[in-house]
Amino acid sequence: MTAHDYSSYGALTIARAYADGAFSARTLIEATLARIDAYDAQVNAFTEVTRERALAEADALDARRARGDALPPLAGVPFAAKNLFDIEGIATIAGSRVLANAPPAARDATLVARLADHGAILVGALNMDEFAYGFTTENHHAGPCRNPHDLARSSGGSSGGSAAAVAAGFVPVTLGTDTNGSVRVPASLCGVFGVKPTYGRLSRHGTYPFVASLDHMGAFARNVEDLAAIHDALQFADPLDPACAQRAFESANTRHGALRVARLGGYFDEHSNDEAREASHAAADALDASQTVEYPDADAARGAAFLITAAEAGQLHMANLRARYDEREPLSRDRLIAGALLPAAWIVQAQRVRAALRRRVLELFERYDVLIAPATPMVAPHIGDEFMEINGERLAVRANLGLLTQPVSCLGLPVVAAPMRTKSGLPIAVQLIAPPWREDLAFEAARRLEAAHVAFCPPPPFDEALLASGADA
Amino acid sequence: MTAHDYSSYGALTIARAYADGAFSARTLIEATLARIDAYDAQVNAFTEVTRERALAEADALDARRARGDALPPLAGVPFAAKNLFDIEGIATIAGSRVLANAPPAARDATLVARLADHGAILVGALNMDEFAYGFTTENHHAGPCRNPHDLARSSGGSSGGSAAAVAAGFVPVTLGTDTNGSVRVPASLCGVFGVKPTYGRLSRHGTYPFVASLDHMGAFARNVEDLAAIHDALQFADPLDPACAQRAFESANTRHGALRVARLGGYFDEHSNDEAREASHAAADALDASQTVEYPDADAARGAAFLITAAEAGQLHMANLRARYDEREPLSRDRLIAGALLPAAWIVQAQRVRAALRRRVLELFERYDVLIAPATPMVAPHIGDEFMEINGERLAVRANLGLLTQPVSCLGLPVVAAPMRTKSGLPIAVQLIAPPWREDLAFEAARRLEAAHVAFCPPPPFDEALLASGADA
Repeated sequence: MTAHDYSSYGALTIARAYADGAFSARTLIEATLARIDAYDAQVNAFTEVTRERALAEADALDARRARGDALPPLAGVPFAAKNLFDIEGIATIAGSRVLANAPPAARDATLVARLADHGAILVGALNMDEFAYGFTTENHHAGPCRNPHDLARSSGGSSGGSAAAVAAGFVPVTLGTDTNGSVRVPASLCGVFGVKPTYGRLSRHGTYPFVASLDHMGAFARNVEDLAAIHDALQFADPLDPACAQRAFESANTRHGALRVARLGGYFDEHSNDEAREASHAAADALDASQTVEYPDADAARGAAFLITAAEAGQLHMANLRARYDEREPLSRDRLIAGALLPAAWIVQAQRVRAALRRRVLELFERYDVLIAPATPMVAPHIGDEFMEINGERLAVRANLGLLTQPVSCLGLPVVAAPMRTKSGLPIAVQLIAPPWREDLAFEAARRLEAAHVAFCPPPPFDEALLASGADA
Repeated sequence: MTAHDYSSYGALTIARAYADGAFSARTLIEATLARIDAYDAQVNAFTEVTRERALAEADALDARRARGDALPPLAGVPFAAKNLFDIEGIATIAGSRVLANAPPAARDATLVARLADHGAILVGALNMDEFAYGFTTENHHAGPCRNPHDLARSSGGSSGGSAAAVAAGFVPVTLGTDTNGSVRVPASLCGVFGVKPTYGRLSRHGTYPFVASLDHMGAFARNVEDLAAIHDALQFADPLDPACAQRAFESANTRHGALRVARLGGYFDEHSNDEAREASHAAADALDASQTVEYPDADAARGAAFLITAAEAGQLHMANLRARYDEREPLSRDRLIAGALLPAAWIVQAQRVRAALRRRVLELFERYDVLIAPATPMVAPHIGDEFMEINGERLAVRANLGLLTQPVSCLGLPVVAAPMRTKSGLPIAVQLIAPPWREDLAFEAARRLEAAHVAFCPPPPFDEALLASGADA
């Protein structure tokens, strides 16, 4: 490989090649920036490119390598973060016009700093639904983030920019967040691997909150090895995030023997179209999952997630909605106002349902290590689509793309999203759901799907010609 | 001692005397039942006396002793439980007429079973505010529970029967619950020791819930040794209560050397009358607490507890309030309806305030092991009193007796309530507040106050003549 065909390689491949002296970090970062400059006008994944910082860090890394210093494990790997992560020196806009003039962040969010400490190089901030409330990244201020595999289609959301930047080959790794599906939905629609760890696993310090009782940090990558390495690198019992209690941690690279896997039927089949259901079956076949089981009251778990989200986010944004309604995202501002007006009794009941269902779902994990479900009911819809048809039922796209992810995140379970082949050629992911604190089991399942060539990340779609003319390191 | 003067002795003294053969369990239980029969018509602490069960258990225990079997540590100790604890074979009424015809409980609540397993003998169920929503045990169905030290005064609530039964010398130990002060307020007004452990410490399985996110189980006793023994006996990681996560546990009997103690000023002084403030100073002097510190935003913590309580309890009882309003307690039914109508945004904000304050209060415990505050703003008010005057401010009694306890339980901190002498002769307790999971520190402080004769439980007020004529074992 050279610095100029980096886009089809993974993070660890890049780190190893860099450590072996195959190219300089400056050359790699220049190639990365050139690729973003060339193609991101079409995709709209980036809302900010941190050019100077990236080049300065690349030069510093090259100097370390020249001195013969030991290199950190992700040395030279370019990455980017959803624009709700604090980045020192720039405003954290969380997808919103109302934060455009916010003061610049004083320091990096914990997870951004973790990757930088491991030698990765931040190249920018990524597009998202305003304040993470959406599943399509049709952001009216920044413009929609387009799906690299079909620019007329949605990248999914709310971490649409994070998934699209990996799918487009701009960077091999990105950070995102998932409250109701915001890692898993865009991973599915863009065809990349994603992880939403157990609730409480990763530090949220230095990120703009959405729904405190549901917000998870997560990551995207082109392959399981990279995603596992990033997941491991992000582990940190952060005293600055009281919800981040570091538990017994099995490395995402732990290898397992027999894995007891079941496919989720019922609700998850009923709300999937043929392609989604076929993906679920294909994953089940590859993992020798002969049983189809029921996730108890998935519809109630989803309802609870919906209500808790609307109420908590509505409360968080109420003052701002009063003062600056006109500047807020038209697709979510009225839903937030409605959320702020919900009766408390409904939210109390939703939290009660959630606790009761969690206990019942944990019983399933006495019999199974991993449960399989599609991540989205269908492949990527077109930007602007209002409705989708799922098994003859007409559903609003923006409210329902998270239909299959919400019941799972509502209970805080860890999930790896693994992208699959479909007949249409557009990707769709399966959720590999593990019991709390056992991300390693979901990673093992993903690794097997990848090894069997059942799950894979399609190659970056853009022409390499522009970059092929550049010089090597 | 004999079985007939048991009322002035503590639980462990009774257990030791029983083990030594000083009397039979049957004689002791008969004396206990006779005392309840003789005096409880005046106090109204018991709503049910479990006569047959108590005598059967006494006989079984006597048979074990006669066989020379090893006796459990609380063998022969009579106890009773607030009537929201399940007792096998009788209906759990939780202070409410609407549950009068509920089916009998199939088995004992976990904590009742724990004490029975330790050899203690249940003699009955105790009066309380309906569904634990109140601070005075002025129950309109069962009648008010009267303060044994002045029958015209309130016993406090909602565990009024639990405190009064100990203060009257009916039983040396009782179980109660504390959501906003329901152990500490009656302990203060009746002059007995009480413990409200850390949130999540004790199993709630088999108890009628009030506010899931604030409900604590607790206990009452005549002295610190007994209370510590009961607290230790109740420890149990109950798989049937998911909120009961057994943590690192220091026995309540752990002895400590130097104890860093501070007195809480500000809010706690402003909402105490002279007697309450003097009790706080007396405890501080006895514990060498020279510093007075501020509990940050105690008023906000109290406000959060108020709103969360009203909303959660309102939701829990909504269907029942719709269907059977006329049968519900007049003192709380309208407050519950108002609670059910609160906007969700207020509760979200209350939970946020609570989490933020908890972090700030935990910082205080970096400097101090125990914090002192009065448990109630004044000594026991008269039954029927609508208002009390605290430092020139006229406050509604029923809503404000928990003024000093709510900010503490809202953050889940463990507290031992220790009764103190006052000028008026009526008791008032101080709260000895420790960091989470460190009940042992609060117990150490209580033990020192007791050893210094600063804290004490006044002798049971009733004439012993009736019982003195009985035969000894």
